[in-house]
Amino acid sequence: MVFNGLSAFPITPADEAGRVDTEALGRLLERLVAAGVDSIGLLGSTGTYAFLTREERRRAIDAAAECVEGRVPLIVGVGALRTDQACDLARDAEAGGASGLLLAPVSYNKLLDEEVYQQFLAVTEASRLPLCIYDNPGTTNFSFGIDLVARLTQRPSIAAIKMPLPANGDFAGHLAAVRARVEPGFALGFSGDWGMGDAMLAGSDVFFSVLAGTIPGPILALVRAAQSGDAARVRELEGQLAPLFALCKELTSLRVVYTMVDLLGLTTARPPRPILPLPAEAQRRVAEAVNRIHA
Amino acid sequence: MVFNGLSAFPITPADEAGRVDTEALGRLLERLVAAGVDSIGLLGSTGTYAFLTREERRRAIDAAAECVEGRVPLIVGVGALRTDQACDLARDAEAGGASGLLLAPVSYNKLLDEEVYQQFLAVTEASRLPLCIYDNPGTTNFSFGIDLVARLTQRPSIAAIKMPLPANGDFAGHLAAVRARVEPGFALGFSGDWGMGDAMLAGSDVFFSVLAGTIPGPILALVRAAQSGDAARVRELEGQLAPLFALCKELTSLRVVYTMVDLLGLTTARPPRPILPLPAEAQRRVAEAVNRIHA
Repeated sequence: MVFNGLSAFPITPADEAGRVDTEALGRLLERLVAAGVDSIGLLGSTGTYAFLTREERRRAIDAAAECVEGRVPLIVGVGALRTDQACDLARDAEAGGASGLLLAPVSYNKLLDEEVYQQFLAVTEASRLPLCIYDNPGTTNFSFGIDLVARLTQRPSIAAIKMPLPANGDFAGHLAAVRARVEPGFALGFSGDWGMGDAMLAGSDVFFSVLAGTIPGPILALVRAAQSGDAARVRELEGQLAPLFALCKELTSLRVVYTMVDLLGLTTARPPRPILPLPAEAQRRVAEAVNRIHA
Repeated sequence: MVFNGLSAFPITPADEAGRVDTEALGRLLERLVAAGVDSIGLLGSTGTYAFLTREERRRAIDAAAECVEGRVPLIVGVGALRTDQACDLARDAEAGGASGLLLAPVSYNKLLDEEVYQQFLAVTEASRLPLCIYDNPGTTNFSFGIDLVARLTQRPSIAAIKMPLPANGDFAGHLAAVRARVEPGFALGFSGDWGMGDAMLAGSDVFFSVLAGTIPGPILALVRAAQSGDAARVRELEGQLAPLFALCKELTSLRVVYTMVDLLGLTTARPPRPILPLPAEAQRRVAEAVNRIHA
């Protein structure tokens, strides 16, 4: 099962013109394979898929497939403003060797349920790869209601959902409510790294982590502890990661990990403009938080 | 002054693959010129700029410039996810004969004030055309605060703002509050067609209208009545347009005008998928509302 355990979402290093640095991407991916993550989320939000052309996205997939060599499943983000583009990207991902797709209903105009349903249908017709619904209202301005999710899970290839953390913090209740409406075997997962321990202890099938794309070791330790039900160890590891989680919440995970990859000497790539690197003071705080983990 | 009076925003007719139908676009624009609108807002949100490639946007600009032949100023939407793309689009618009630019901070990740400021700066360096700030939180997930607007208006080419309707309905208060902070001569305008009468009666410099892109005559009559301070006539015309305004609010202006251009025999172009044509029942209601205006 491709949507299971820890899915690590690296950045996609690229130059100012949006040309992907495949060598630096390979360095990032090699770390993830070596750490033993359960899957790699290539071209997710953290992988700035929305900012890259079809050609560059394909170059990133090809480079990733070549680097990973089947050792870890590749989940590839195929969201796009236009449905025909999302279908093309799904075909590219399959042709490039992806094991699964991640699809967010990227939008400019707020979309309706039926419009999102039809888009997902079109993508499942373009590729038979297992697909994960990407529910990210913060970037898409669209929230998946449970009725739409239940309807989508009737398509055999729609196999998982990546959800935002429940606002009320009730992971067990949220998981039970969704499980009651979806097909058996449909995988439930969350993103928002600061909720990782709670989500996995509550029985989430998968966690989609930004930080795991850059510091896979400590994040994997946390997920494995949660999977074995060792809550005390989870809380201990969360203690080390707490300053970093707080910074991700405050400054956004994307901006924090761009600082981290630079600090760790992995790549000096910057986020795509208009997104700017963090100011010096914030970078200093990220450095402190990173040092605390390695201490 | 390019940002003044009634600015009419037509759709950009295109086929399923996103290829612009320049002939149908010409038909739409000829109606706007004939009606005497003060400017044409090409490739605005209604013109589905976000869904079109740079090449197709350039084709639309060239076709529009050829059709309009300088009879009415062309304001061209140049928003894009990447700052370098927005700069390229601004250069294309200037090269294609545009009289002004309209720039929304299109986003996937929620942007920060400084990021938006730097993007606007970059676009004003790419083209010297007068630029209108496009404040549309519903599509960009970014709201312009007054401090940022005041800072932007210090750039000589940033000449206007297109604002959402004030939530509390206090147009005069909102206009006064913004005027107190911006450079003299900076033009203030709103969009949201149902607020047109109130906005223009309260002294808004310009109104950016979706319906004017399809039925310029009745909308122009309303704006001219408001500009001459004839509130009674404004209310009378608003009465005729009320059902259409209500449908725009309920179903979104974009989806309503796609039905209208078809009803009026102007083009059978459909919105870019994932956006779907309105269901039959909603189309019937739009037809009734359109008939009421012509009665």
